[in-house]
Amino acid sequence: MASWQDKAAAKRASLATLIPSDLKLSALPGSATLNVTLFPFDSVLSHRDVEITETVNVSILLKKISEGEWTATEVVSAYYKRAIVAHQLVNCLTEIFIDQALARAKELDDYFQATGKTIGPLHLKDQIDVKGVELTMGYVGWIGNVSKENSVCAQLLLDQGAVLYVRTNVPQALMFGESVNNVFGTTSNPFNRNLTCGGSSGGEGALIAMKGSPLGVGSDLGGSIRIPSAFQGLYGLRPSYNRIPYCGSTNSMEGQEAITSVLGPMTCSVDGLKVFMQAMADAKPWLSDPVALRLPWNDAAYLLADHGGDGARLCFALMWDDGVCRPMPPYIRALRETKAALEAAGHKGTRFSPSLVKPVSHVHIGLFNADGGHDIALARGLSGEPKLGWSTVLDSEPKHLSTYEYWQLCRERTIFIKKHLDHWNDTVSTTGTGRPVDAIIAPASPSAPSQHNTPGYIYYTGFCNLCDYSAAVFPVTTVDPAIDVKLPAHEFRSVNDQTNYENCMNEPETFRNAPISLQCIGRKNEEEAVIRMTEIVSAALQA
Amino acid sequence: MASWQDKAAAKRASLATLIPSDLKLSALPGSATLNVTLFPFDSVLSHRDVEITETVNVSILLKKISEGEWTATEVVSAYYKRAIVAHQLVNCLTEIFIDQALARAKELDDYFQATGKTIGPLHLKDQIDVKGVELTMGYVGWIGNVSKENSVCAQLLLDQGAVLYVRTNVPQALMFGESVNNVFGTTSNPFNRNLTCGGSSGGEGALIAMKGSPLGVGSDLGGSIRIPSAFQGLYGLRPSYNRIPYCGSTNSMEGQEAITSVLGPMTCSVDGLKVFMQAMADAKPWLSDPVALRLPWNDAAYLLADHGGDGARLCFALMWDDGVCRPMPPYIRALRETKAALEAAGHKGTRFSPSLVKPVSHVHIGLFNADGGHDIALARGLSGEPKLGWSTVLDSEPKHLSTYEYWQLCRERTIFIKKHLDHWNDTVSTTGTGRPVDAIIAPASPSAPSQHNTPGYIYYTGFCNLCDYSAAVFPVTTVDPAIDVKLPAHEFRSVNDQTNYENCMNEPETFRNAPISLQCIGRKNEEEAVIRMTEIVSAALQA
Repeated sequence: MASWQDKAAAKRASLATLIPSDLKLSALPGSATLNVTLFPFDSVLSHRDVEITETVNVSILLKKISEGEWTATEVVSAYYKRAIVAHQLVNCLTEIFIDQALARAKELDDYFQATGKTIGPLHLKDQIDVKGVELTMGYVGWIGNVSKENSVCAQLLLDQGAVLYVRTNVPQALMFGESVNNVFGTTSNPFNRNLTCGGSSGGEGALIAMKGSPLGVGSDLGGSIRIPSAFQGLYGLRPSYNRIPYCGSTNSMEGQEAITSVLGPMTCSVDGLKVFMQAMADAKPWLSDPVALRLPWNDAAYLLADHGGDGARLCFALMWDDGVCRPMPPYIRALRETKAALEAAGHKGTRFSPSLVKPVSHVHIGLFNADGGHDIALARGLSGEPKLGWSTVLDSEPKHLSTYEYWQLCRERTIFIKKHLDHWNDTVSTTGTGRPVDAIIAPASPSAPSQHNTPGYIYYTGFCNLCDYSAAVFPVTTVDPAIDVKLPAHEFRSVNDQTNYENCMNEPETFRNAPISLQCIGRKNEEEAVIRMTEIVSAALQA
Repeated sequence: MASWQDKAAAKRASLATLIPSDLKLSALPGSATLNVTLFPFDSVLSHRDVEITETVNVSILLKKISEGEWTATEVVSAYYKRAIVAHQLVNCLTEIFIDQALARAKELDDYFQATGKTIGPLHLKDQIDVKGVELTMGYVGWIGNVSKENSVCAQLLLDQGAVLYVRTNVPQALMFGESVNNVFGTTSNPFNRNLTCGGSSGGEGALIAMKGSPLGVGSDLGGSIRIPSAFQGLYGLRPSYNRIPYCGSTNSMEGQEAITSVLGPMTCSVDGLKVFMQAMADAKPWLSDPVALRLPWNDAAYLLADHGGDGARLCFALMWDDGVCRPMPPYIRALRETKAALEAAGHKGTRFSPSLVKPVSHVHIGLFNADGGHDIALARGLSGEPKLGWSTVLDSEPKHLSTYEYWQLCRERTIFIKKHLDHWNDTVSTTGTGRPVDAIIAPASPSAPSQHNTPGYIYYTGFCNLCDYSAAVFPVTTVDPAIDVKLPAHEFRSVNDQTNYENCMNEPETFRNAPISLQCIGRKNEEEAVIRMTEIVSAALQA
């Protein structure tokens, strides 16, 4: 029987054979070239391919297709070519299925004017089942695991005119914030290849940053959409539980529902969030996913009906620190710039004090390890491959909890989220709008995308998963070592705090050019309002 | 230290002292008087008290208050008096807090014309925390357990003008379908005191049937709103998960969320369902309950926007049998009468074949016993009282599952509910409306309310809890031994099937006058449409 190393090597070799010779890069940039977003794509792609793929605004892209300026086939071709080039630079793909994509594009070209339904090309993270396509989720033992059916999400996207053409890299088992596994290796951050692209939807983030796709679908259990979106300067939305259909997609630790993983969009332009969410809601996922909520797209909510109406003065609470792990200087700068931009646009910025509601990372870690690592061990055991994963998410020697112990963790989560909600409601006295704060603005992470193999702290995003808040990330700036200088060590409040400081502050130059992004966090089920408020914040930043 | 028996006796004695002497019945009806709904209330209550409490239509009741014909104080007084009389006949109350209720009524009388918010008097099951009121949930060891805060549900009801005045009896731990515990004993069915009132919201059901309240709140984990509503000829709605706020209410096995318990209304008139659900939605529970869904009352859904619009021809699928446990003759008669009534009203009745989607009671039982009975044992251990409960719900020797085993049960549930949804969707070929069936009409139970201490089968209601379908019960008929004659034994398909036959068929006379009710089952999150369709079916039955 082949070793796990041989199986993984064979899979990588097989993926490599899917790269057409005319798209194979004859000379790869040297390791000193850290920022590969500046790669001269016109050396491989046609002028039109470059033009198409650099049309980052998803609405404009769709308009050009619907007006017949570009065919679906042209658009899909441009993107798959760029995706394949991107893959050679940052190792972001796991499956390439161009024939299926081109056949679908041809169907759309034949019929799109009648249906008017094309929402543009999309790709999917390596956990969303697509009929006839292999799904490994980062496990060597799952090589050859071809999906028999489309997941509900893939099916509805296809029904809405999407074209699926590649799958992207993830961490082993999806369960940490760095996209590395024993099958496909590590995906690098296109802005600085010494850094991680984040995870778990990291291949997705890297691909979109390389403009190998305008929009993709990731999943988020602790930040897996938002962290890679943030680390690549993208827009990414974590919808609340069961808004986007998960049914038929594969996941780690299925049955763990105390924190429910969600699917959501990642895209290079803010309008992509709305395009995706509206298209998915219009597809009525509740008719085919038994746990999807019956929530049509709500235009009144998008127009901020519960926030004074569109155009009203909003009050955002800035979260400068979560009380556990102090954000590094570029995030403080990003918060300051955002506050100034919001105030210049007529809005108000207050402070969100986390003192009463510190993230409860032990609840996350307890829930994620409650089966004693059994689920992941079973999948690893199929091939004998070694375990990967950060100690900040996965215990090195997890205890297998009894059901009663597991329920007590669920109860502790409920106490935390009620306290957090009460705290949010209490802000009504500070806003001057008559409402509690409309949204929280928080760092997506306390650290810039870290160097490879460096555990990170995921609870700036993670508390939203516990509370089920709808939350979008948006880009603000990039690390500039000249400004974001090393701070003296502060009095560390926790091991996480100390590790984060040491990982991030040793040498700011290490993080040059890394995207720095914030989150716009709304209440549970406020996807529409969060998208609108993210548009408002982004517009303020650009003004 | 006092024995559990002494503590329970003291609690009952203390409850008895709260019965005012002018409401104490000097002579109780003898045990041969089975139907106590016919009790001559005018022998104890004034003419006006009787008139008020027999105004079963909740909307009319509210109208009379809002027009000043009756004051809130008068209405509350009438209901608490009748509730106290009812208690002496069927043993349905656990707490009586009249002073608090009258003070609240006075406030409402002073201000209701300004606020227009009175929604009428309500009472609560013994698990919904009310500040300052004792909550035992059927445990001797919880005697003296006074709630420090109002639950979100109680608070919002008070905010909407409700008056809370009593609490009602439940099974020990809430976990079986008969309202009996070691503190308060057994609550009887007012229509036939030899029979059970059902559970877990059984005291509630009995009280409303006695017209000791027009509307109350129960909870439903496997049928606990619907079974007692059905057994008392009431209307009761099981909303989908997290529509009505549960936060701050007490429950058994908190942290068990694989099947989420829900709160919902029980009422003697169908319009009460809408009054309650609309009032609760208007109170925006999502602002104070961290898991409540952001779902305002949806008038378009109530007007059947997803079912062809109000007035359209509907197609109902009748479920004659769940494939496990055959319903007894009065249910078949009720289904037949309902089908004929619907067809006479211009609607269509088809058959819902459960052959592909038999209820998976082992999943329910597995989940309910997954902690090895630890949660309940801890609460019983406080007093040393013995365990109660049916073997059809609670294992006699439950195995304590590991978290991994628990997750596998959750996965099995997901497979079942997806299969059930697909099966529902497949009915589109049989309806003639272009839609899948609009609702399922099913028995609320395969048996009439059974004799005391007789285990029942709860999976006619239970499958809706798994699938999270919105479902309402409505009354159709009562057992008539002359028509609902004993059937010869059929070939039993399961132990449940045989037990149900033997419990129910030995002597039809036993069940004389027992209410027989059906469910109108809509999809997940279809509360509004289910209420409207229940109104339509009820109107057809009355025509």
